[in-house]
Amino acid sequence: MGKRIIETCFSPALYEPDRHSGSIVVIIDILRATSAICTAFENGAETIIPVSTVEEAREYKARGYLVAAERDGFVLDFADFGNSPFNFTKERVSGKTIVYSTTNGTGIIRLASDAAYIVVGSFLNFRALTGWIISQDRDVLLFCAGWKNRFNIEDTVCAGAFAEKLLSSHLYSTICDSTLAAIDLWSLAKEDIGAYIEKAAQRSRLRDKKLDDCIPFCLSMDFSSRIPVIMDGVLVNMDYSKEGQ
Amino acid sequence: MGKRIIETCFSPALYEPDRHSGSIVVIIDILRATSAICTAFENGAETIIPVSTVEEAREYKARGYLVAAERDGFVLDFADFGNSPFNFTKERVSGKTIVYSTTNGTGIIRLASDAAYIVVGSFLNFRALTGWIISQDRDVLLFCAGWKNRFNIEDTVCAGAFAEKLLSSHLYSTICDSTLAAIDLWSLAKEDIGAYIEKAAQRSRLRDKKLDDCIPFCLSMDFSSRIPVIMDGVLVNMDYSKEGQ
Repeated sequence: MGKRIIETCFSPALYEPDRHSGSIVVIIDILRATSAICTAFENGAETIIPVSTVEEAREYKARGYLVAAERDGFVLDFADFGNSPFNFTKERVSGKTIVYSTTNGTGIIRLASDAAYIVVGSFLNFRALTGWIISQDRDVLLFCAGWKNRFNIEDTVCAGAFAEKLLSSHLYSTICDSTLAAIDLWSLAKEDIGAYIEKAAQRSRLRDKKLDDCIPFCLSMDFSSRIPVIMDGVLVNMDYSKEGQ
Repeated sequence: MGKRIIETCFSPALYEPDRHSGSIVVIIDILRATSAICTAFENGAETIIPVSTVEEAREYKARGYLVAAERDGFVLDFADFGNSPFNFTKERVSGKTIVYSTTNGTGIIRLASDAAYIVVGSFLNFRALTGWIISQDRDVLLFCAGWKNRFNIEDTVCAGAFAEKLLSSHLYSTICDSTLAAIDLWSLAKEDIGAYIEKAAQRSRLRDKKLDDCIPFCLSMDFSSRIPVIMDGVLVNMDYSKEGQ
């Protein structure tokens, strides 16, 4: 029996179509999209509808939905709140359907549409997600969202953490240079992730826009045991009890 | 006065058009293309004509040119020799024009056509090339060739070495996550580059095809003080004496 394969993709521009059909694709965009989504589900959100354009978000708002939408760090005037995890409080999101504006995220969901599962990963649901992945007999693609198609350090480090944990189960192997590099960067970062990503471009962008208050939270492990998963184009909380192999 | 900028591109698929006009673009493909090209010029080659297709290479051969051409590690039947640096001996190449078949390389040359200079980098010409770059008042893009558009470890480590050296001059700055990650991987590799890249996918591919005898040579520093540069679509040896700012 061959081992399951781990690969890592550093940017949507590097995604190779047709190579990950049947795999588990883990979307990683820790500052801040996938951290915010994990937080929303932990706080009781029912469904998150990812949309790519401002117009779509506006239409949903007009139909009464709760809308989280930013452009370049500014909350859009019609939106209920922005994309910080701190906005997705229990009071606001419990039992609700939320529309989440994310150009990058919707692109990745479309790219990876032949995956067996598209799940949302962050440090916040690290233990739960790695545990579930290991329970599934499938190859894994760690898909770093990047920023405008660029490589970024923080998602790479998180991918390295996932890869290291999965490989430690001895059920996986990798010959993917991206995965091996991610693991090595994680080895440099793990002692103090916050200090390590001080140099990241996204760290600076969030600081410049005074949106960096959530970073220590985004780097904290296991806030949630929820696994957000794409079903029919929307994000829902995975129901383990219905999950087979 | 602002500092000059260093950026790193991990794959042709990540190249951003229009962002590097006026920059020095350093092509890095150390196993084996850029190491072979540096070796050829050190051994007296006059000109290297990069071609992308087997048909072009075959036509040049029919016109009497010396042709280096492989596909998937096998020397093409009409070619004079393959792409190992060890093939580019003084006896074979001194004073000659060589046609070099490289799908990846020609693509990169086309992509970077609005650069001020496109130069060929490897460990083999590290000191000469970094010295020349520092003498030029220009931004730098370290362009890792990748393999089938994938990120690779060995070119990234070499880019990290170039970036570290340039930054140590205090004439450059970078806010590019790819550059910062490359420097960190270089910090892990520099004590024993050969041992570090044992895990690289290209290391395994070359071993499987018994083409790995040249790797220790490709990882050795400063074999050559030549700087291969693209002029009118072909590679020539840079003539420092004619170089101004």
